[in-house]
Amino acid sequence: MADKRPTIGMDLGGTNIQCGLVDAKGKILARDDTKTKADRGGDAVVERMIELIDDVLDKAKLKLDDVAAIGVGAAGAVDVNTGIVVVAPNLRWNNFPLREKLRKKLDCPVIVDNDVNVGAWGEYVAGAAKDQGDMLSIFVGTGIGGGLVLDGRLYHGHFQIAGEIGHTTIAADAGLGRRTLEQRSSRTAVANRLRRLIQTNHPSALVEITDGDLDKIRSRAIAEAIDQGDLLTIAVLEETARDIGIAAANAASLLALSCVVLGGGLTEALRDWWVDRVQEAFNKYVFPHEFRACKILMSELHDDAGVVGAGLLARHE
Amino acid sequence: MADKRPTIGMDLGGTNIQCGLVDAKGKILARDDTKTKADRGGDAVVERMIELIDDVLDKAKLKLDDVAAIGVGAAGAVDVNTGIVVVAPNLRWNNFPLREKLRKKLDCPVIVDNDVNVGAWGEYVAGAAKDQGDMLSIFVGTGIGGGLVLDGRLYHGHFQIAGEIGHTTIAADAGLGRRTLEQRSSRTAVANRLRRLIQTNHPSALVEITDGDLDKIRSRAIAEAIDQGDLLTIAVLEETARDIGIAAANAASLLALSCVVLGGGLTEALRDWWVDRVQEAFNKYVFPHEFRACKILMSELHDDAGVVGAGLLARHE
Repeated sequence: MADKRPTIGMDLGGTNIQCGLVDAKGKILARDDTKTKADRGGDAVVERMIELIDDVLDKAKLKLDDVAAIGVGAAGAVDVNTGIVVVAPNLRWNNFPLREKLRKKLDCPVIVDNDVNVGAWGEYVAGAAKDQGDMLSIFVGTGIGGGLVLDGRLYHGHFQIAGEIGHTTIAADAGLGRRTLEQRSSRTAVANRLRRLIQTNHPSALVEITDGDLDKIRSRAIAEAIDQGDLLTIAVLEETARDIGIAAANAASLLALSCVVLGGGLTEALRDWWVDRVQEAFNKYVFPHEFRACKILMSELHDDAGVVGAGLLARHE
Repeated sequence: MADKRPTIGMDLGGTNIQCGLVDAKGKILARDDTKTKADRGGDAVVERMIELIDDVLDKAKLKLDDVAAIGVGAAGAVDVNTGIVVVAPNLRWNNFPLREKLRKKLDCPVIVDNDVNVGAWGEYVAGAAKDQGDMLSIFVGTGIGGGLVLDGRLYHGHFQIAGEIGHTTIAADAGLGRRTLEQRSSRTAVANRLRRLIQTNHPSALVEITDGDLDKIRSRAIAEAIDQGDLLTIAVLEETARDIGIAAANAASLLALSCVVLGGGLTEALRDWWVDRVQEAFNKYVFPHEFRACKILMSELHDDAGVVGAGLLARHE
């Protein structure tokens, strides 16, 4: 698109909506956010999205005419051809026609895609995977999501909802509930595992770090425990990094990827310690050895990946 | 390509070379084969390929001018941009410039790709995956290979050698040597496992079927044992089908595939018994449930997949 006007990028989550005015290089020129309040229903969420766009345009002293397109990354499964959000548990949506609803109220092209997908696109165009080839992003948060850019295009697959790396089985011989990547390696899974271990008398600095409230084991507490040299946390997170490395290696062996970008809360908190260990496991498990040239990278857009990626994707489409 | 002339398709293996004259619909109009004799060196293999092409053209009463292009599927890792066979243990080749060698001797366009890739392309254009969307083929033989057709194109990836589903880890918690799909589920792995079990006093009909020579456990013997209701063979092959189903489910979860085509000796011997069990495991492991619509199919081109696929790919390129 030769259009030099900026685009609007929105990251629509179950708790918050982030919105930014994004230029052609992925720079955020103005931004704002608001609560999603998904419990008020889909139409109310659409209203809040439109108000948020107005607020951002006001901040930038622009009107909707000054914007080339609007891109939304939604926390759910999206049919990109229709812009319908097929399933989004956190938004309480089933088959919600988000693009149509937005288009009715806004005289501007709108695209809707999955939030992890648009984040992957952001990293590909303007972040960690810039100037790289085929890439996978792995977003490690309360769950584990993935996004693929193959042959220079965001890849959606036959059923439109590709990228479910979190639901791949990496431990077929383990018990049910311990077989998939997400069951083993999401931040939720890691926190649950640490809590169980501590409750069965494994000593850990996490008790003090969380003031004894083990429900408070979050990414930041985990990072602090590792900084303090806590052996239990280090052991669990080393296994977790290995599992992520195995899943990344599986994808690279199948797809001959040039890089894998890690994002999400756990990545942001543990940074190099984490990325290095994932790369180490990746190198052990990937085949053939040529694929060791595939780089494990840390997100460069961090929490902005959704907004930037949605803005850039709207421009691209 | 509007060119109505047929193409030459070649399947270059470590033991045999198959060659066919292939029409636009993937029908083989004439064919012949010869031994590879890889031990005589690369140039000698190229000479034998050229003689074989001559033989097939003679049979069809055609000349090279009557052929639109030549496609070769080689048993090794191929850089499709250069037509160089990067590594091919069974052909004893390293960085062998096959396309250049053939072009010097033949006044005709030549393309070279991996044998499993061209087989996948054959199934996609003229076989089991015809009129389907994104697809993976899994070839279960002495090893396990894979080929991907994504967005209507044979997918090669950043390092040109995508499709290594056999080397994906599906059992991270198992011991070394029991973690990847190929280590668990190739015909070689299955035969070794059955032999070890029988040698440690597990009764099996395979003893009689192989006249007591357990080195003769091949796909056909396995099929016969299952036909006879041999519980040991059934138990091992059910686990094997489960592992293939898990690997297929992993690929489908990541890539939202419309179908997975099974080929190779084990598939050809066990047929519906095998495909049904792979589909059953696939349905248990794939996520989300929408992906259960992804079909596990049996190769329709069988041993001709390489020749037909190479011929059709040469036409397409």
